[in-house]
Amino acid sequence: MKDFIYYTPTKMIFGKGKHREVGKIIRGYGYGSIMLMYGQNSIKRSGLYDEIMESLRAEGIRVIEAGGVEPNPKLDFVRKSIETARQEQVEMILAVGGGSVIDSAKATAAGVVNTCDVWDLFTKKAESTGALPVGAVPTMAAAGSEMSASAVITNPEENMKRGYNSDFNRCLFAICNPELTMSLGPYQTACGIVDIMSHTMERYFGVCPDTELTDQIAEGLLRSVISAGSRVMADPRDYEARAEIMWASNLSHNDLTGCGREFATVVHQLEHAVSGEYDVVAHGAGLAVMYPAWARYMYPHAPQRFARFARNVWGVTEADDVAASLLGIEAMEEYFRSLGMPLKLREFGISSDSVDRLADLCTYHRQRTLPSYVELDYERVKEIFKNSR
Amino acid sequence: MKDFIYYTPTKMIFGKGKHREVGKIIRGYGYGSIMLMYGQNSIKRSGLYDEIMESLRAEGIRVIEAGGVEPNPKLDFVRKSIETARQEQVEMILAVGGGSVIDSAKATAAGVVNTCDVWDLFTKKAESTGALPVGAVPTMAAAGSEMSASAVITNPEENMKRGYNSDFNRCLFAICNPELTMSLGPYQTACGIVDIMSHTMERYFGVCPDTELTDQIAEGLLRSVISAGSRVMADPRDYEARAEIMWASNLSHNDLTGCGREFATVVHQLEHAVSGEYDVVAHGAGLAVMYPAWARYMYPHAPQRFARFARNVWGVTEADDVAASLLGIEAMEEYFRSLGMPLKLREFGISSDSVDRLADLCTYHRQRTLPSYVELDYERVKEIFKNSR
Repeated sequence: MKDFIYYTPTKMIFGKGKHREVGKIIRGYGYGSIMLMYGQNSIKRSGLYDEIMESLRAEGIRVIEAGGVEPNPKLDFVRKSIETARQEQVEMILAVGGGSVIDSAKATAAGVVNTCDVWDLFTKKAESTGALPVGAVPTMAAAGSEMSASAVITNPEENMKRGYNSDFNRCLFAICNPELTMSLGPYQTACGIVDIMSHTMERYFGVCPDTELTDQIAEGLLRSVISAGSRVMADPRDYEARAEIMWASNLSHNDLTGCGREFATVVHQLEHAVSGEYDVVAHGAGLAVMYPAWARYMYPHAPQRFARFARNVWGVTEADDVAASLLGIEAMEEYFRSLGMPLKLREFGISSDSVDRLADLCTYHRQRTLPSYVELDYERVKEIFKNSR
Repeated sequence: MKDFIYYTPTKMIFGKGKHREVGKIIRGYGYGSIMLMYGQNSIKRSGLYDEIMESLRAEGIRVIEAGGVEPNPKLDFVRKSIETARQEQVEMILAVGGGSVIDSAKATAAGVVNTCDVWDLFTKKAESTGALPVGAVPTMAAAGSEMSASAVITNPEENMKRGYNSDFNRCLFAICNPELTMSLGPYQTACGIVDIMSHTMERYFGVCPDTELTDQIAEGLLRSVISAGSRVMADPRDYEARAEIMWASNLSHNDLTGCGREFATVVHQLEHAVSGEYDVVAHGAGLAVMYPAWARYMYPHAPQRFARFARNVWGVTEADDVAASLLGIEAMEEYFRSLGMPLKLREFGISSDSVDRLADLCTYHRQRTLPSYVELDYERVKEIFKNSR
């Protein structure tokens, strides 16, 4: 077990109808002036916007609106929001929506406090010194951004999607009402499930010895999500299944499933190249393509680990490690397919010609390699993208 | 899944040699004057005291000492420490030791800030309004007090051991170095293992429907602890096993294994009557007696749950739920026995005559019942104590 720091200060308020307490919760922290960040119009159509506003109004909280966050959220929106938040001197940011909204709120919160350009935090040109508090009311179960230390923003000028990790990115509180995720369509729900699984799998496949307790937790979480995922595809209004998936989304990305392990988001890096370049690719769908592509390249280099994954997560009984590994990957592919996910880039209409360009983007123009059971340089990354065509 | 709040703000710094950073960590929070709380002389004998003092001295931190915490920590020590902490105007309390030391630090921290007598917080006569920050350097893996919301103190005048739960009881930080637990003897180590398992089992056997994700995490944690426990009994210096047990001690009592479940510490209540009355009984050893005694009384009332426990934790393959339940309890008993734990009160020299008195104490002189699959009144509690003779 490697040394680690585990720090998840976010207060998680989980359950039915809890979002209606948001005004009281914010007032409890002593804040009276907030920026309300949200995405497109879905929270207005669903009535969630009205319920949130009513709860804030009841506590006399001043609200500056910042609606219109796009999927794969954009840097220019964040920059504009930082300017507004400064002008209006808001005390905190409330994010109501999916991971894109929460990540935009985190980036804005950091940008308001830091004097550098916010993008410098993502490119590591500057170190963060703090951030406004962020509260989150997630409407999706996916990134688990409401409990994670990470934020991902896309810079369209440079065609670059970048993540930035910091304890300042930890939300002050999160209000998770699984009912809010019931209106998600099957595709978005499935994208979320793949994203959740990926967050734990990235940690599970970190290059280090087995860590029994953390591995058992990771495997249990994956089994729960796989089961709940199938149930929710059959009945989108299954509260228990929605609740399990939502809670898993948090535990999968708040570092619990990585404690004591090496941790690098290799497949996320591969996927960010794809969805950074092709706006049509939802993050979870991109992961459904890239995870098997990565695994098919990688399992010969770590058959024991892939075999454990196959047996403990997918119930594979094959005794030979190499054969079991492959059966596990096939089971994962079948499961993703059962959720209605794509398994190849061509299903997005992305042509085979893109492989060079994606490998180039992913390796920052051959300037970096990715750590995995074998170090992934440009040529190896290209092989993986070939698997994904 | 029941609605829940999950709030574990404690910063966990986990790994080899980390306790030597304590001075820097405290200075990082801006504190310059602390109360150092510890137990008997073991941290002086082991050299830990010197290492801690050196780290504090290097940062110029003023230290007021409060050594001498006893097992089953006593109210009068806490009252005295509160007085000293007030006089000396310390900014925080650093607890170095086992659960007794950390609990005493929590109680002292609460007592300094609250104007009521500190015992009123334990008897629920008064509500806490805050506490000094507490940092913990645990030397045992057991109660997981360094990450929990609870503190347990004994009031010898009233022969009463009481727990008090509050978010103000959450430590600011905890530094967990598994190496510090290597010098524990097998009995103390075993007591810790039983305590850790009990914290998860109390939650697991809460009266509510299965909660798949939480249950999978609980079962995985128990399997890990059972395996690591056997390894550590065979080789007390097995770092990986010590580390797993220590990390489990935290996850077992920071609420993770209870999210979405009903939660009552029924067996802890039974045990508190025993170790509150008989100072010779270590908490973990008392639990090793009371858990099977409770389970043998209770399984006919929830055979499905006990059978799941038997199958997923102990590997029982019996198909019949009632028979499987009993096999699971027997496996638990055998395991506790393999750790060198007692299974009956008479092994402590406690006579059968004590049953009435223990049942009386446990039910606060027949004033309360305990929630379980059947509500436990005085008569039923007495039956359980009969099982434990």
